[in-house]
Amino acid sequence: MSEKYSYSFSDGDGKNKALLGGKGANLCEMTQIGLNVPSGFVITTQTCLAYLKNQQLPEDLMLEVKQQVTGIEKQSGKLFGDDSNPLLVSVRSGSAISMPGMMDTILNLGLNQKTLAGLIEQTGDARFAYDAYRRFIQLFGKVVLGIADEKFDAPFDEVKRQAGIKADIALDAEQLKHISELFLQVVEDETGKVFPEDVYVQLELAIKAVFGSWSGKRAVDYRREFKITPQMASGTAVNIVTMVFGNMGSDCATGVGFTRNPATGENEMYGEYLVNAQGEDVVAGIRTPKPVAELEQEMPDLYRQLVELRNKLETHYKEVQDYEYTIERGVLYCLQTRNGKMNAAAMVRTSVEMVGESLINKEQALLRIAPDLLEQLLHPQLTPNHNTPAIAKGLPASPGAACGACVFDADSAERLGQSGKKIILLREETKPEDIHGFFAAQGIVTSRGGKTSHAAVVARGMGKACIAGAEMLKIDCQARLATIGDLHICEGDVITIDGTSGEIYLGEISTVAPSFSPQLKTLLAWADDIAEVGVQANVDTPENARVAANYGAVGIGLCRTERMFNASDRLPLVVDMIVADNPKERKEGLDKLLPIQREDFKQLFEAMYPHPVTVRLLDPPMHEFLPSAGQLENEIAALKNYLDIIKGQRVTLETLNNTQQLPPPFSQLNEEAVNNAISQKQLMLKKVNALFEVNPMLGHRGVRLGISYPEIYRMQIHAILEAAALSIKQGLGVKPKIMVPQVITAEELKKINIIVKEVQQQIEDEYQLKLDFDFGTMIETVRACIRGERLAETADFFSFGTNDLTQATFSFSREDAENKFLPLYNQSGVLQDNPFEVLDTKGVGQLMKMTVDLGRKNRPDLQIGICGEQGGHPESIRFCHHIKLNYVSCSAPRIPIARLAAAHAKLLEASYVEYA
Amino acid sequence: MSEKYSYSFSDGDGKNKALLGGKGANLCEMTQIGLNVPSGFVITTQTCLAYLKNQQLPEDLMLEVKQQVTGIEKQSGKLFGDDSNPLLVSVRSGSAISMPGMMDTILNLGLNQKTLAGLIEQTGDARFAYDAYRRFIQLFGKVVLGIADEKFDAPFDEVKRQAGIKADIALDAEQLKHISELFLQVVEDETGKVFPEDVYVQLELAIKAVFGSWSGKRAVDYRREFKITPQMASGTAVNIVTMVFGNMGSDCATGVGFTRNPATGENEMYGEYLVNAQGEDVVAGIRTPKPVAELEQEMPDLYRQLVELRNKLETHYKEVQDYEYTIERGVLYCLQTRNGKMNAAAMVRTSVEMVGESLINKEQALLRIAPDLLEQLLHPQLTPNHNTPAIAKGLPASPGAACGACVFDADSAERLGQSGKKIILLREETKPEDIHGFFAAQGIVTSRGGKTSHAAVVARGMGKACIAGAEMLKIDCQARLATIGDLHICEGDVITIDGTSGEIYLGEISTVAPSFSPQLKTLLAWADDIAEVGVQANVDTPENARVAANYGAVGIGLCRTERMFNASDRLPLVVDMIVADNPKERKEGLDKLLPIQREDFKQLFEAMYPHPVTVRLLDPPMHEFLPSAGQLENEIAALKNYLDIIKGQRVTLETLNNTQQLPPPFSQLNEEAVNNAISQKQLMLKKVNALFEVNPMLGHRGVRLGISYPEIYRMQIHAILEAAALSIKQGLGVKPKIMVPQVITAEELKKINIIVKEVQQQIEDEYQLKLDFDFGTMIETVRACIRGERLAETADFFSFGTNDLTQATFSFSREDAENKFLPLYNQSGVLQDNPFEVLDTKGVGQLMKMTVDLGRKNRPDLQIGICGEQGGHPESIRFCHHIKLNYVSCSAPRIPIARLAAAHAKLLEASYVEYA
Repeated sequence: MSEKYSYSFSDGDGKNKALLGGKGANLCEMTQIGLNVPSGFVITTQTCLAYLKNQQLPEDLMLEVKQQVTGIEKQSGKLFGDDSNPLLVSVRSGSAISMPGMMDTILNLGLNQKTLAGLIEQTGDARFAYDAYRRFIQLFGKVVLGIADEKFDAPFDEVKRQAGIKADIALDAEQLKHISELFLQVVEDETGKVFPEDVYVQLELAIKAVFGSWSGKRAVDYRREFKITPQMASGTAVNIVTMVFGNMGSDCATGVGFTRNPATGENEMYGEYLVNAQGEDVVAGIRTPKPVAELEQEMPDLYRQLVELRNKLETHYKEVQDYEYTIERGVLYCLQTRNGKMNAAAMVRTSVEMVGESLINKEQALLRIAPDLLEQLLHPQLTPNHNTPAIAKGLPASPGAACGACVFDADSAERLGQSGKKIILLREETKPEDIHGFFAAQGIVTSRGGKTSHAAVVARGMGKACIAGAEMLKIDCQARLATIGDLHICEGDVITIDGTSGEIYLGEISTVAPSFSPQLKTLLAWADDIAEVGVQANVDTPENARVAANYGAVGIGLCRTERMFNASDRLPLVVDMIVADNPKERKEGLDKLLPIQREDFKQLFEAMYPHPVTVRLLDPPMHEFLPSAGQLENEIAALKNYLDIIKGQRVTLETLNNTQQLPPPFSQLNEEAVNNAISQKQLMLKKVNALFEVNPMLGHRGVRLGISYPEIYRMQIHAILEAAALSIKQGLGVKPKIMVPQVITAEELKKINIIVKEVQQQIEDEYQLKLDFDFGTMIETVRACIRGERLAETADFFSFGTNDLTQATFSFSREDAENKFLPLYNQSGVLQDNPFEVLDTKGVGQLMKMTVDLGRKNRPDLQIGICGEQGGHPESIRFCHHIKLNYVSCSAPRIPIARLAAAHAKLLEASYVEYA
Repeated sequence: MSEKYSYSFSDGDGKNKALLGGKGANLCEMTQIGLNVPSGFVITTQTCLAYLKNQQLPEDLMLEVKQQVTGIEKQSGKLFGDDSNPLLVSVRSGSAISMPGMMDTILNLGLNQKTLAGLIEQTGDARFAYDAYRRFIQLFGKVVLGIADEKFDAPFDEVKRQAGIKADIALDAEQLKHISELFLQVVEDETGKVFPEDVYVQLELAIKAVFGSWSGKRAVDYRREFKITPQMASGTAVNIVTMVFGNMGSDCATGVGFTRNPATGENEMYGEYLVNAQGEDVVAGIRTPKPVAELEQEMPDLYRQLVELRNKLETHYKEVQDYEYTIERGVLYCLQTRNGKMNAAAMVRTSVEMVGESLINKEQALLRIAPDLLEQLLHPQLTPNHNTPAIAKGLPASPGAACGACVFDADSAERLGQSGKKIILLREETKPEDIHGFFAAQGIVTSRGGKTSHAAVVARGMGKACIAGAEMLKIDCQARLATIGDLHICEGDVITIDGTSGEIYLGEISTVAPSFSPQLKTLLAWADDIAEVGVQANVDTPENARVAANYGAVGIGLCRTERMFNASDRLPLVVDMIVADNPKERKEGLDKLLPIQREDFKQLFEAMYPHPVTVRLLDPPMHEFLPSAGQLENEIAALKNYLDIIKGQRVTLETLNNTQQLPPPFSQLNEEAVNNAISQKQLMLKKVNALFEVNPMLGHRGVRLGISYPEIYRMQIHAILEAAALSIKQGLGVKPKIMVPQVITAEELKKINIIVKEVQQQIEDEYQLKLDFDFGTMIETVRACIRGERLAETADFFSFGTNDLTQATFSFSREDAENKFLPLYNQSGVLQDNPFEVLDTKGVGQLMKMTVDLGRKNRPDLQIGICGEQGGHPESIRFCHHIKLNYVSCSAPRIPIARLAAAHAKLLEASYVEYA
């Protein structure tokens, strides 16, 4: 234990929060950098622990306290307990970690009958003095003597009632004097003792009370709740500070300020003040404070001092400060300062400007901004403080705010969207055939599905706001109606959604547009210079590729070719190809798809030029492109019922219902046509049943399709390489990367590579040129991780597919887990995070690390990236940097965040702590 | 290259197969252990390679050959090319690896006009001599001179036609002489040269031809097909051996023998012989050979010599030999010997008896039996050589043969089975509610599903024959009919099935019953003494536990408690418990299940006493216990149609069909009852839909259920520990092991362990005793492998669930993979084995190895086992031993195989080769 129990603010070590508490250390630091802080001292946390252990103060503590008080007296020119120029102090707790409101504070300590007279004399304001006195008695009574507030409330209310007064402010000096007398009586009645007149007795009791509050129920609960361990904070310090008053007359004032404008980041004086007022008056909002600029007129000298204070704060803290001050009789005191909280735009602007002013360097500029904060700048946001209550809440599936008229199907969305209307698409769940509705909509809401649902994934890719799984909303697309209890939302009703919070609002709430400001561009350019991990994009369309390039992506790390299959002009071709009974028929379907895919790739390559584009060969199981068996069965049943109708048989209610599911022109069909339609549907149903899988996630997909139906992969490889050849002919030396999904063994890669080589030869001969491309593999099965060394013999690059890899490592199906047990797992602490959002470094990460080592064992230059969703998450990017990945790839709107996070990763690498 | 080109049989190194070829080395070895082998010599494989390289024989080779021939002449007393006592030789190829029929052999070399006369004189049998001559000319002509057989066939057939003869055997000496002359003319016509008379020219040409045959198309194709690499065999040796004749008179004979009875293993003279015959006569079956016992009467001295030969063979080879011999003029020659192929019973008996005779030691006795061979002894087998053609083939899902009348539903199976009839249950696929049909049936056939289907898994567990996925069989359970093309199999028709091969036969084929002989018990006891890996059983019922104990299981490594839930008296309780809307209702259901499970466990513990019983807590997702949504929808639709009928509305054909799916007493229901039934079904449908999972394999199951519904696990833990307490009270100190499935993090284990501790306290207090049990975890997720070190802090044991772990490592759903792409993967060599049958040591195995190291890092005594299906596979058991597992657990009928394999693993550990 330290030999000293206490430190004056001029002596204490401003860095030693463990010993002095956060507040105490801060007061010491402010004092020592020359700010005019009211004088005072800190009693250490060690002293607190000793007190709690022995249940008594160290013998000589009060002796030391008296010496410290003497020191204060000298500095302030006031005397503790004096009847003409009395020193009053505040006694505040303050532990190493801030625990707001959890421990006790006593103000105006040092008041008694004698000093009260002095205070009245000093201020000439009896009402102020009695008000301070009655507050002190109650606070001391409560905190130190344990008297419940109600005991004081009763006489207080009685006095007000008798005087016919409602507001406290209306009480005059005499009435407050009377109240203070009644309060002294309350204390005597409750404790059996008179209120202590001796100011040192007051101080000693107060110190004990503050120490004791550390082990009070409130504080203990708080520490448990926020997981504050004894290593983080142990015991509370006690800060004893001279009271200064901003309400002693017109040469007094109190105010709060930011060293820069926290809303815009502009480098200007910013803040508000009130003349002749206490700090709480500013906060309470009874009087309207004035902007600080007016202080320049009102108190020019003090304004100059305030500018000086502001400059000192920034020069010292090298960070925008949020500070409080009081002017007592023409003297400016700085009471508190802390780092200012700002919005993202202000953070970015101040970062860039502070570097310009040489206040901080680029590294510091980058590190002061949490990467996720940039989210604000990339999506529209609801106007702050809109105060509209939400009517429903779903999962925040894709960030950003959007507002528009409700529509319940994609066709209407398209039609209304094209007419210039802003719309929100509401569906129970979405499917690939709804994609044109996404393009037209400002935002999407579904009542079913999680953050991995089709709606969520597609919306995130497009950067559109989306709320998924809003289960309290009953969406009836046929009736074009959404209901929440009694509330009906019809087609055309305007709603606002916040995809960042998952909240839905009735009516329009204005939004703040995103701004990719020049400062942000500067900042991210600095980030790119520092980062070692490159940031690429997961995009599937040329439009998104252009967005990604604009956000600074240095390539496409993942293009999911199947997304291209789902467009309405292609899906029928894909279905024909799948339903084909033999390779020849399938080849015919593929021949039709080839030029379409080739054109897709060509556009992608050119949009991303000169950066590389990684194309993943077909991944999902084929049944994903077909209607469900249930849907087909319903359609067949409906058609059969329709046959009954044609034949003149009885129409039941159910029959009518079913026929409503038929495509519109059904009424023009004759018996033969219906029969044909039935056979066709039955044929497709047969195929759907043949393709049925119990666990499609682990089914016939990825490279397994490529091995079973080499003609499909051959078509895709042909389209990729021919697109590259065509681009090269146009003078763009594009470099595609062909990526094979779901690989488990080197043999698979070898077999696909044979096709690649054959197609390459064919294209090079045909176009008379040399192609430059890479051939690589997704690492998304556990076996691929284990076999990394062998895979690297054939693969030029690895790309971790951490979505699937996480599923395989946990044996969690994401869709099922997020809808069933994962929330419980997170709530109950079985798992800290959702591993599909934050990379599981203890499990999945260890596999990745192993794979990196294995892959580079004989091929040190192997390029390795990640293209799972976690690749856009800052914490995960730190891990990716740590295990030496070359790049991360994420959805376009996450790219700026990832770029900043990549720089953070490099800057913070030395302090990276591996899991235990 | 060796300096010598050749070795006489007395000189060659019998172990050097690489140099002398397999046959040559064998002839040397036989000669050198004192067997009377016809004299001869081997020209080395090195000489062959030199010839192939230079396309000519080494200069001095023929000089050395002449010296060797001189040696033979001395030993045989015959002279090569002599006109009175001619030496004839065979010239045979023989490489290091046997390639039957792939290279060339020439017999009777040394015949020409001169020696032919000598042979006639010597044998007094002109027909024999001319027959040998014409054969020699044709063989030499074909092999050495490259003349097609057809060229010889034409004159041969012409002679037969002219003589009016059909069978070759009817040709007399004169006719054969004429043929040989015609053949000589063929050679001259085809080659332009006369047939070589000089016997050394014959020999030199023959040697060249044999050498050349090594690089002939046939041999090259064969080596490619059977993956014979140059490291395994390079070049062929040439064996030149004195011809001996068993057909020179009544003091000649030829025969084949086994040193012990290969059918029974009995230690007796065994074999057949023919007097005055060539070896091919025995094989050709023209004359019926006599049992060797008769030789004792016919040629007592030679019989004695044969007994001596037999003894020498076994003493030297320490293995049952399959040998060939010829008696030429009273002299016994041993022509060949090799290890005898025997059935499993004979292998076991000879192993045990040879140890008794001190011929081999126990280790050798164990190693000579391939573990899988024991399969024969554990299941009924079809009578060998039954010659009935199969009518269909499915997947061999559970081994053994069975025969019985076809039935198409479990109820009929039970009824007929109880009446004593043998039956085979045919279903499209089976479900838990068919279980009573399994008990009644001899075997099961399904037309759908793979080796992991319900039918397959349950049948294997019961040791009943099963063929799954016999897709060519159309099974129509309603019509009680199976069809294969035009063939109809009706209820009651008798079929035979072979679950080992997957083949189905019409009618009854007799079967051989399995025999768990005393010798097998002895052998397995030796195996247990040697093995370090213990063998436990995967069983779920007391009956199976008794079977497993009888087979020598030293514990239950896996009891799947959910199997107990499926019995017909329990399923309704389980369904109630699942459909329960709140913990209270669920608790009521669980309270009813508790005594049932407790009794199950008590019986299991006692059946396996004193060995431990590992009980896995509930694993499958809850929807597995409920009917499918489709089934419920159909039932509801049928009920609704039935309502229409009651209301007197029109009955359509479809309505009638649907109502047939109703339970029989539906006709007694009134409208209200039907409405009630509909609501009930709809309620259950709602629950089924709520529990629906996209990928149930990766869904809400295992410990995830235990965390979500702790009351379920609490009930099971209570049942286990209370059963143990009750057994202890009865004097049986049973030791249960509680095992948690699907664990991914130590937190899950800790949470369940809290429940275990609470229940333990409760039971110990109630029964006033101390419980002794272990708490452990399945390792069946990849994350559990990676987190092994942490899991070992709470778990007393690990048990690898390699079924699920393989699925997770490969991202293969077993059901989907085996029905879709896995066969193609195996055929095309992408994967060598089915990883669900043979442990994937390169992938899954590496994870296991890592887990063993992590788990024992801070807990060296951690018990680790495997309870996946691969745990019963010999190759996988070798790996389990290699990575130091404590035990394997497999289905009861695999236990003897696993015990033997465990001993093999220990004995062969030094030669274990890890994957590359």
